[in-house]
Amino acid sequence: MTDFNSLPKHVWPRGAARQEDGVVTIAGVPLDEIAEDYGTPVFVVDEDDFRSRCRDMARAFGGAHNVHYASKAFLTRTIARWVDEEGLSLDVASENELLIALAAEFPAARITAHGNNKSTSFLRSCVREGVRHVVIDSAQELARLDKIARAESKIQEVWIRVKPGVEAHTHEFIATSHEDQKFGFSLASGSAWEAAVAANNAENLELTGLHCHIGSQVFDAAGFNVAAERVLELYRRIHAELELALPYLDLGGGYGIAYTEEESALDVDAVAADMLQAISECAKDLGISTPTLVVEPGRAISGPCAVTVYEVGTTKDVHVDDDTTRRYIAVDGGMSDNIRPALYDAQYDARLINRFADEEPITTRVVGSHCESGDLIIKDAQYPADIAPGDLLAVANTGAYCYAMSSNYNWFGRPAVVSVRGGTATPMLKRETIEDFLAREA
Amino acid sequence: MTDFNSLPKHVWPRGAARQEDGVVTIAGVPLDEIAEDYGTPVFVVDEDDFRSRCRDMARAFGGAHNVHYASKAFLTRTIARWVDEEGLSLDVASENELLIALAAEFPAARITAHGNNKSTSFLRSCVREGVRHVVIDSAQELARLDKIARAESKIQEVWIRVKPGVEAHTHEFIATSHEDQKFGFSLASGSAWEAAVAANNAENLELTGLHCHIGSQVFDAAGFNVAAERVLELYRRIHAELELALPYLDLGGGYGIAYTEEESALDVDAVAADMLQAISECAKDLGISTPTLVVEPGRAISGPCAVTVYEVGTTKDVHVDDDTTRRYIAVDGGMSDNIRPALYDAQYDARLINRFADEEPITTRVVGSHCESGDLIIKDAQYPADIAPGDLLAVANTGAYCYAMSSNYNWFGRPAVVSVRGGTATPMLKRETIEDFLAREA
Repeated sequence: MTDFNSLPKHVWPRGAARQEDGVVTIAGVPLDEIAEDYGTPVFVVDEDDFRSRCRDMARAFGGAHNVHYASKAFLTRTIARWVDEEGLSLDVASENELLIALAAEFPAARITAHGNNKSTSFLRSCVREGVRHVVIDSAQELARLDKIARAESKIQEVWIRVKPGVEAHTHEFIATSHEDQKFGFSLASGSAWEAAVAANNAENLELTGLHCHIGSQVFDAAGFNVAAERVLELYRRIHAELELALPYLDLGGGYGIAYTEEESALDVDAVAADMLQAISECAKDLGISTPTLVVEPGRAISGPCAVTVYEVGTTKDVHVDDDTTRRYIAVDGGMSDNIRPALYDAQYDARLINRFADEEPITTRVVGSHCESGDLIIKDAQYPADIAPGDLLAVANTGAYCYAMSSNYNWFGRPAVVSVRGGTATPMLKRETIEDFLAREA
Repeated sequence: MTDFNSLPKHVWPRGAARQEDGVVTIAGVPLDEIAEDYGTPVFVVDEDDFRSRCRDMARAFGGAHNVHYASKAFLTRTIARWVDEEGLSLDVASENELLIALAAEFPAARITAHGNNKSTSFLRSCVREGVRHVVIDSAQELARLDKIARAESKIQEVWIRVKPGVEAHTHEFIATSHEDQKFGFSLASGSAWEAAVAANNAENLELTGLHCHIGSQVFDAAGFNVAAERVLELYRRIHAELELALPYLDLGGGYGIAYTEEESALDVDAVAADMLQAISECAKDLGISTPTLVVEPGRAISGPCAVTVYEVGTTKDVHVDDDTTRRYIAVDGGMSDNIRPALYDAQYDARLINRFADEEPITTRVVGSHCESGDLIIKDAQYPADIAPGDLLAVANTGAYCYAMSSNYNWFGRPAVVSVRGGTATPMLKRETIEDFLAREA
């Protein structure tokens, strides 16, 4: 870490700044004031950061509609409205994600439905509500959707999810394109081709695209290129044998972001340029107009826009071995609001946000308040020795897969979520209380 | 697996049985009827199983009051009432766990409070409500609690949490007694002794016990014995130098249960006998009356009493390599209702519960419906080839740390929880709906 009092621009929200008194603001709103007004832990979402990343993606991929925000990263009605206002499309991966989008009046014509095991109810809702594309994940689903569309007297546009057999070099649990996993149809075994034929033959389905997704937090652009080439092989075969020039090619998401100062986000512009070129060359070869490249960033849009503000409760120096002592800093949240360190060994960047830190760095671990030793937030860091109870720590890049995967472990209420813009804080989600839990009792 | 149609007694709830038509019942209630009435996924809790394990523990440890059910495993008001009716004591690890227990009219005099970073509000509630024992986890907390007790004009009974330096050989994330972790005071470094002295000197605290906990899912009884001996060393020193004969010795929980047919639960009776003997010998040496042995099982009481019933939605054969095909069975829940396979690589036992299975076993993986490849429930099993969409699968041993750690990932609603007893099903927790999520919006 270069300077604990800095806020590395590639890690922190674009609207983050440190005032002269050491307090960190986002969009001009001091984080200590938000902590005071909403309590801690609290998620603070930089609205302009979110919107600016939507625009960056739209620019890179040649149009906002081609960029589908992946709801699973973080979805509320407010988020759906922002996505809509920025002109992006939306991916949903469950019926409830769809219902939240529709409750925000997100146009169904810009929604694509995902999932390895979509319920019949979800599929029916897609057909009835006019969800534009349903990405078919299995032969059973293909038959089911065709039947539902027939019962509803509709033709449903579908894409085929293919496994390109590309392994993204990330943590085992978030790599999704190797063959031995639950999603999609294998290119190698021929089942993707068979699915395309079946979709083409299905009376109430219209095959309009192919889809693949190689994994999450991908930093090696080569993976996207290999996947694109392989999917384009199937695209060519469909053109040749089924005489279909599919209008859409969805190459998924998974663009790596910088969780720590040492990391650099994937160069999305370069990835976009490569993908667009590969598709355009293929189209030229085939003598067809270039299909629309669709992408599905989730984390790369919503991850960096938010931080979690915690209050330090307890510090403790733990004797590790004869030569080592570790400072344990316990904050008032933990694995209930951010399961990613326990689940994926995920790294994060935390900073003191209520003042400047003064002292020399010492070996530090930031842990949560849950009754479990795996409940940690920052496993190994060098932080100033003067961080003390009552201080406020903020963890950057918590906009994706934190609230979305949050639990009530130890009956902790989910934190409040507050958006900030132009010096104003606006509540987005309320903190859960004991009354919410008791109301769940039958 | 010996016979997929069997229900191994050491894994399944005590009230589970398979009818002549192949349908599985618990406490005489057919699980397919519960699925019909409450939807899937649904947690089904065998009340008599839960209560009988409370009694087993009470018998092993010489009295119901000495057994503290660890709420963190699974707590609702109903569960708190069962624990109360069986005469057990209760451990809470957060203010909300305490509030739920109190809402169930659980007597505060039988509650013990845990946590590495108890909030000031939690500590104050403990003192005001008369929580019998607060387990002190840090020097800062000791000072804080003393101050709060003084402000409330009360004397608070406290125990000191010590790290006995015993490593339970379980998954890294659930072993909790090695030195480099967040809980308690080190015996080896002397900080546990210092904490005992400080507690003894604190004006408004009364030191009445020591506490340790060596980990979760422990199968090697030797660990408990070593921990007991080490804690007793401190006990002796406190007796010698502070002239205190502490009335309580809490040796934690962590008793391993059989998640799979191949496993055997830890022999708790044997562990209890060893612990009781060690403590009684120590007391005889010191010429004092034997302190009360307190233990804190959570999983060993609530784990085996519940199953999760899922409906199979999609099956798919995946080409793994030239010689191997794997059947993927996707059910209508997943990592939102059971994060343990993804988080700890946890194993489970699943059975078909709506009929007998007929066909030969094939290599199978049971996965959930979440948009993530790590979303799996049973990683590698040999299950009959005739399991098909519409079938109902139940997963055993989901009473602990499943609902408690459940999330709304992909905006899945938490499943309903239903208890069964004497042929009757009673709703315990309602299924969450989209309305619950929208109500969280500010």
